[in-house]
Amino acid sequence: MNVRGVHHVAMAVEDLSEAIETYKRLFGATVELRDRSERDGIEAVYLRVGGERVELVSALEPDTPVGRFLAKRGPGMHHVAFEVEDVAAAIGELTADGVEVIDSVPREGLGGHEVSFVHPDSLHGVLAEVVAARG
Amino acid sequence: MNVRGVHHVAMAVEDLSEAIETYKRLFGATVELRDRSERDGIEAVYLRVGGERVELVSALEPDTPVGRFLAKRGPGMHHVAFEVEDVAAAIGELTADGVEVIDSVPREGLGGHEVSFVHPDSLHGVLAEVVAARG
Repeated sequence: MNVRGVHHVAMAVEDLSEAIETYKRLFGATVELRDRSERDGIEAVYLRVGGERVELVSALEPDTPVGRFLAKRGPGMHHVAFEVEDVAAAIGELTADGVEVIDSVPREGLGGHEVSFVHPDSLHGVLAEVVAARG
Repeated sequence: MNVRGVHHVAMAVEDLSEAIETYKRLFGATVELRDRSERDGIEAVYLRVGGERVELVSALEPDTPVGRFLAKRGPGMHHVAFEVEDVAAAIGELTADGVEVIDSVPREGLGGHEVSFVHPDSLHGVLAEVVAARG
């Protein structure tokens, strides 16, 4: 699979605004995008920290994937996203390799990008996203 | 604090060689550096994945920070490292801001870089490293 690099690293947080302020104050982060998805039950931001991107993601409700993550593990690192040219092709390659993908067809993620998630059982406990960034 | 960007994102793994093979096979990763620290009780690699760096870190013994992390949480995302010009200056700024740093003076990390770790309690559950990369 042709991976361009790490598109972002994502942290699950309890209080989105408070966490944004922390990253601004400590690391000079700036907000690139703020988005909300009722379907995924999240509110999230992409921050720029120097040359890279950090996502902060919070749960709209406890009974959502991020809400359950927070209840079980507490706030902390949540997933890493690898940038690819073509998410559908990446899903095909991963599946052919026996990897369990959570989204068997590309779906719309934060910022309108096409994404699919890879199950942590297939990547040594790490939840990974493949994302095709637009523009 | 002047952060250049994300230097690496680190994953704690049970079996280093097996995890390296997974990242090579799935994401075309290449090994940049393999290193071992008896003092920290780790064996680790820096992988290049496209334009970015992923660290895989394993424990030499169960009774080490990474060994205890693996026993408690299982393999998965472990820390994120932010690249700075001057680690001592970063420690000073963080401490002045009330942030709990684990290393109050810079110490030698993977690849001989100067590093200090920031306690997860000061960063919404995220273990962070500040690192001054050489060259």
